This record gives sequence, C-alpha cells and structure tokens, in this order.
Amino acid sequence: MLLIPTILCGGAGSRLWPVSRELHPKPFIRLDDGQSLLQKAFLRGACLPGVEEVLTVTNRELFFKTEDEFREVNADAVTTSFILEPFGRNTAPAIAAAASRVAEKYGKDAIMLVLAADHLIADQQAFQQAVLKAAELAASGKLVTFGIQPDSPETGYGYLEADGNTVLRFVEKPSLEKAQQYLASGRFLWNSGMFCFSVGTMLQQMEQYCPQILVAAKVCIEQSRSAEGKGFRLLELEPDTFANVPDDSIDYAVMEKSDRVAVVPCNIGWSDIGTWTALGDLTEPDADGNRIQGDALLYDTQNCTIQSNDRLVGTVGVKNLVIVDTPDAVLIADKSSAQDVKHIYSELKAKGHEAHKSHRTVYRPWGMYTVLGEGRGFKIKRIEVKPGASLSLQMHRQRSEHWVVVSGVAKVINGERDIIINTNESTFIPAGHRHRLTNPGTVPCVMIEVQSGGYVGEDDIVRFEDNYGRT
Amino acid sequence: MLLIPTILCGGAGSRLWPVSRELHPKPFIRLDDGQSLLQKAFLRGACLPGVEEVLTVTNRELFFKTEDEFREVNADAVTTSFILEPFGRNTAPAIAAAASRVAEKYGKDAIMLVLAADHLIADQQAFQQAVLKAAELAASGKLVTFGIQPDSPETGYGYLEADGNTVLRFVEKPSLEKAQQYLASGRFLWNSGMFCFSVGTMLQQMEQYCPQILVAAKVCIEQSRSAEGKGFRLLELEPDTFANVPDDSIDYAVMEKSDRVAVVPCNIGWSDIGTWTALGDLTEPDADGNRIQGDALLYDTQNCTIQSNDRLVGTVGVKNLVIVDTPDAVLIADKSSAQDVKHIYSELKAKGHEAHKSHRTVYRPWGMYTVLGEGRGFKIKRIEVKPGASLSLQMHRQRSEHWVVVSGVAKVINGERDIIINTNESTFIPAGHRHRLTNPGTVPCVMIEVQSGGYVGEDDIVRFEDNYGRT
Repeated sequence: MLLIPTILCGGAGSRLWPVSRELHPKPFIRLDDGQSLLQKAFLRGACLPGVEEVLTVTNRELFFKTEDEFREVNADAVTTSFILEPFGRNTAPAIAAAASRVAEKYGKDAIMLVLAADHLIADQQAFQQAVLKAAELAASGKLVTFGIQPDSPETGYGYLEADGNTVLRFVEKPSLEKAQQYLASGRFLWNSGMFCFSVGTMLQQMEQYCPQILVAAKVCIEQSRSAEGKGFRLLELEPDTFANVPDDSIDYAVMEKSDRVAVVPCNIGWSDIGTWTALGDLTEPDADGNRIQGDALLYDTQNCTIQSNDRLVGTVGVKNLVIVDTPDAVLIADKSSAQDVKHIYSELKAKGHEAHKSHRTVYRPWGMYTVLGEGRGFKIKRIEVKPGASLSLQMHRQRSEHWVVVSGVAKVINGERDIIINTNESTFIPAGHRHRLTNPGTVPCVMIEVQSGGYVGEDDIVRFEDNYGRT
Repeated sequence: MLLIPTILCGGAGSRLWPVSRELHPKPFIRLDDGQSLLQKAFLRGACLPGVEEVLTVTNRELFFKTEDEFREVNADAVTTSFILEPFGRNTAPAIAAAASRVAEKYGKDAIMLVLAADHLIADQQAFQQAVLKAAELAASGKLVTFGIQPDSPETGYGYLEADGNTVLRFVEKPSLEKAQQYLASGRFLWNSGMFCFSVGTMLQQMEQYCPQILVAAKVCIEQSRSAEGKGFRLLELEPDTFANVPDDSIDYAVMEKSDRVAVVPCNIGWSDIGTWTALGDLTEPDADGNRIQGDALLYDTQNCTIQSNDRLVGTVGVKNLVIVDTPDAVLIADKSSAQDVKHIYSELKAKGHEAHKSHRTVYRPWGMYTVLGEGRGFKIKRIEVKPGASLSLQMHRQRSEHWVVVSGVAKVINGERDIIINTNESTFIPAGHRHRLTNPGTVPCVMIEVQSGGYVGEDDIVRFEDNYGRT
C-alpha cells in the first residue's frame, strides 16, 4: 500500500499575530525546541513506515521558505514535491488538485493522508496507529476523518457524532452549552481537519458531489507549468485557471455529503494551538505562573505569557497578559481575549499596514534580508546569501549601492567587472550599473548594503537574469 | 536685586523608565509640544524679569546634551553657566557649591532661585508673582521655600504646615490617612523642592548647620578646573574632592533646622509628573479614555496610555495599562502600579543591563550615533555630526571602518590623506589608521559606519586630539 502524506499549508494564523504574518504564517512559527510547526508536520508524515514522498500544497510565495524548512530536517532524504497555489481557495480545490496529481503518478489505489501544516501532535506512536487504521479503512473505499477525543468543551472546533468508525453527523462550532453536552455524552469528537482516503475514492466522490471543483482543478493541473529539478517535482498553478476553481472546504464539498465517510477516533495529544494562550502553554511556567521566552524583567506580575526576541520586556503590576514582541510590532492582549487578536490582523490588512504582511526580515530564494534602518534618501540592509546562491542580475535606475562584506565571500558582477569581495572589503554599484551578487563559498555570505538615492523603494529593480524565475 | 535662577538637574526619573535612562534622565523627556522638561525649566528661569544668567548644576556626562537643549530655546541669549558634578551627592552639596560660586562672582546679596529641572509649572504668571514675593523675603534674610496648594491627598510628596509665610513644621511623605487630614485642614502645603534665598544667608546658615558640607564644597570649587569659552562659564568638580562632600538633601541639612525659613504658598499649576500616569495625563484621551502617542491599533481597549516611537503597538482586551515602547525596551505596567516602575530600573541597574543606562541612540558632544545592528565581527552605526563639529582624531587597533555618507558632506582625515566625502561617497579606514571626521557644512552630516573586525567594542579607541577634552 502506497501512502502519500499531503501537507496543506494554508491559512494566516491571524490570532498568532505579530509573529504570524501573511508571508510568515503560522506553520513557520518555531517552538521552544527550535522546530517549526511545518517541520513537525513534515516529520509526522515522513516518519511513517514506508513513506517515500511527501507532497505539499502551499502558496507559491512560500515555496522557497518551505523547501528550506524541509531541507533542515529531511535527514532521510524523503522526496518532497509541491503544488503551488497563486492564492488560497480553501481545502477542496487543494485536495482535488493533489488527488488528481497523485492518481496520475501512482494510480487510483494510492492512499493520501492529508495533514495540516500547523497542528501539534504530541504522541507520534498513537498517531501512527491511527494512520494505520485509517489507511485500512481508506483502502476499503472509505473517506476517513480523524476524530479527536475532546477533553474540554471547546467552542472553536467543529464536532462529529460517531459510533465506532461510523460518523452519525457533523456539527458546526457549538455554543458552550452544546459543547458541554457533547463532551458529557462521550459520543462526540473534534473534527481535526486530517483525512485519509484512496485517491480513486476521493476523485469519484468529488465527481459526484462537487464536479465543478474537480473539473476546474484538473484543468489547472493540465495547464500548469511543471519544473523538474533537484530531486523534487514542482507544479505551479496558474492564477487565471485557478481563479475558476470554486472556493470551498472539503468538509462542505464532500465529507458532509458523502455516504463513504468513516472516522478513526484518536487520542494522540492533538492541538491546533490556534491562540497565544495555547502556544504559550507549551512553555513551562515559573512559580508565579509566568511563561517567558527571551529577555524580560517582571515585578509583581502573575500568569503572563511573554515572548520577545531581541528587546527587553519590563512588566509591573500586571496579570493574565500575553505580550509578544517582534522587531516592528508588539502585542499586549488579555489572555481571555486571545481569540480577538485576529481583529488586529484583519484591520492591519485592511489598512495595508506592512506589519500584517511581512517581518522586518524578509526571506528570498537566495537567503534573506533585514532592513536595519532607513531615512530620506537612504536605506540600510543586512543581506545574507546562502552558499552557492545568487541574486538576480539586476539594475536600479534611481539608487546606488555600497556593499560591505562582513562575513564570508562575495562574487560580484559590477558593470563590466567581475570581482571577488572578501570579508571586510567593499564595492560601490552606481545607479544604472548591472550587477549581481553570488556566494561562491561554503558558509553564508553576510553583507551590509547601504542604498543611496532619491528613491529607495523595493520596486526600483530591473531583473535581467534570475535563477528563480523572477525576471 | 540680582536674581540667578539655578537649575538642579539630577535624579534618574526611574519611574519613567524606559524613556528615562541614566544618561537620558527625566529632564530630557520631551512633551507633546516638542519641548523637554529641562527646556521648560530653563525658560521658566530665563524669562523672569531682569535675569541675565542661568546657572545649572548637572552631571558632567550630561553637559553637552544640556547645552544643546538650552541652545535650542535660548532666543534671548541669556548667559548659561554650569557646575558639573562627577556623580550625584544630593541637593545640599550642589546648593553649597552653587551658592559659593554665585557669592564669589556677584557678592553675598545676590538672590538664588533654585529650580528643579524636571517639574512642570502650567501658570508662568502665577509663578513669576510667587518668585517676586519669595525674592523679597529672601532679600530680608529668609530661606524661602515654595509651598504648593494641594488638590489631592498625595502620599508621594513631603508636606509643610504653614501659617501665612511662616513654616510651622516640615513633615515626611505621609500615609493616605494623614494626607487626607492635611488636605482637609487647609494648613498644609506640598514641599515643591524650589527655594529662594540670598547666597549670603544660605552660606551663613550652612556654616551653622552643615559646616562639613560647606567647607568640602568650597574646597571642590577652589580645586576645580575652570574653562572659559563660548560665552559661558564652566566649573567641573573633581571626583576626588567631591567624594569628600557629605551626601545630604538641603531639606535635612538646612531647611528643617534653620529658624530663617519662610514659605510662599502658591497655586501655579505645579506637577512633578513623577510617573507614567501623570505624564500620560498630559495627552488628551480619546472616547475610550486611551491616550496614544505613536502607531497603535487598539481593540476592546480602555483607559490605556500608550507611547511608541517607531513600532506598532497592538492591544486586545486590556484596560488601565501604561505601555511605553522604545527601540530596545518596552514597559507594560498597570496604572495603579506606576510608582513601582522604579523597581525595574533599579534591578536593571543592579544587573548592569544596558537598558538602564542609555538608549540605542547615544548623544555625544559632536552629535549622536545609533547602533543599527551588530553581529559577530561587525557593528553598524548611523552617525550624525552637527555642522562644524568634529569627532576626535582617533585610531582603532582591532577594527576597520567603512564610511558611507548618506546626507551632507564629511571632511575626513584618513591616515596621511585629507579628503572630502560627499553624499553617496564612501571611504575605508583600515585598523591602525589615524582618522578624524569633521562636518564642514551647514547642515547635519549623516553617515553609515560599518565596523568590521575581531572586536568591535566601544573601548577600542585611542584618542589623539579632541575638541571636548576627552583625550
């Protein structure tokens, strides 16, 4: 039996702002152990017995970053393949595209295990047992969902009523009263958003219940560009065709309608850690109930969750707060309002405020940059280039650039010259000069770029050649 | 009658951390109108009728910054003179030194008006009337204190019981119950920390009540270096002699013992704005009682005071908080605990944490610098040099420096060369090269300095020549 774990990496994680941003969503949040949620999801799938390929559906803006995350933990060199969406269309189109792709490659009997990229599962062994059971049911033609044994009357999750592996009904996020009844009854499970099915069954059920989605998704796949390279397979969906796929969740589109649905009840230490209180609870509290990551000084402070990277947080006479500090934004929320953090995110987005979209450090296929400062007519960046990577061959019309290498070595095209810049050397790129930066070394190249000119916006760039298809 | 306003600029303002720091204490805090408390104190004295000189006693580390502050507002070109202390010894030594100095220069009949550098007085006209009355009493041989009509039962101030201009007794900071009694009696006034006296009277009373302080202070004055220049007189006290002056307040050392004490009761809109709640109350509240300065996004938030310079503050479901954001530290305090902020300051100081001492932007006689970033083997600074100012002729043993001018013009000595660097030009200073930066222009020169080397600490500096006596 061939099992293809398929990670759906979507959703903003708006309740986890300011760490979570549009271009740095929840799956990329790193926990105390240094691993991101996305890496944990990858390992969850990749470590299952017999798995040789992990398929990921994600936004194309997140591809290089996702690949980096996987590379960091992919010690067994499991094949990673990707379907890249130009924008999100909920889970049904993503699953339709993935199932079509898997069927094409491995045939209709291949079993797909759909995993969320941003959940936590504490008990990997129990998870594996649940997957075995689910795969068995899937092979017999069932669409299997994983139902989590509830341990509290959560109002933020959907529920399903079950009898053994039989799903009696799905129910929406309930009121607290209803949720308490569900919990007491012992017959209700949380709908975890993980699924297991043979691609043949899913495609057949989609044909029956949401043919429009299936047909449109297949068109996307056929018309998409496909690129082979580096041992992975990559399928990038085109915006024009993908826009034609109706936006719907797999629950609405298929699961709640199909008569092939089954459930595997499980107790696997599952958590969707949707809020700062849930995420904070992963850190051990001190004697006053405070959970601290980073540099903080507390006076008369109880039961607070504090996370800070590079600044000092001082608190006086407060309790039950979540305080999250990032280089360009800080959140202060009462724990009881943790759900409401999403309103800050959505208002920032509506206002076009940069703090909803990206962090001060921006990831690029070739590495990353951080804006250290800017003023009228200048901008200063720290640029880190991965070993072997190159920025595009480019030119700026309105700004010149001074480059100082502070670590590693840079190979630079500057106008007509090809030069090597060692640590503690510099070069000057006048406006209008074609230039390119490559790291020819085996360690990261770090340089400081001082831009100077009448206009220093990111959009003053002409790309002549790019290793990442961005010309 | 000759009146010399004398500003005592001491005290950390530890309850106003993180804006207030050891090297950027409370008097330098700027209010909504753009003026610092120190500038307001200066104008308060300088605008009194007939005043031609304002004397300031301050820490020597704060001299250049204080002078800059005065220069900004000193439109009438009142003479500014300074006594610089190597460290704080409370008010009695400062007043002893100042009174000795004034007596020496202007004779024993000169009237000294002692002002705090970090108070707010809303009604300048009422203040002037109170000063006239006080000066009259001072001329008749009284040590005059200014007693503020209380409008609330403050427990943070000392009180004095008065009958007309007669002081019946001084009382320490009272309990709330006592304070309420004092307020109700109508006979008690807040002890404001402002004084007025003829220097002859004060010196004579000191001779009687605290001769040790007076004698030691006079020794300091005699042995101090004196430098004339730029129209001001500057007296820098030596640490060795100043350490011999007993540490005491003028209240304990003289006022509470002397039988020459008088009080001028006044109603002048006085506030010592000692805490963030008091300082915050100067900003107009919005409909939810929030007082906001800077970029903030509030959801379900009431009665909060938020101050931020260059980052976004998001709040959710909180009330009655003070949130103060600075580039390297953020404070979150309950308003009812505003007094306790000092504990954060003192603990940071005990730990030697940089955030108690200076901000990321550091002021120097020649201008200022801001550390934009640092890493292993490098540090990046934004350096701003005042028109006409020069850094010292210096050399670093372990680091080289790349300088990129992004605004204005720099005149540079680099080893054997004398060069001009215009905006968008750069130079490289190898380790071991003597170098000097001067701004020959009429606008500030802004440059980005990338330091590179095995060690980039501030103490790797050899100064050969300095305009500010720092060699």
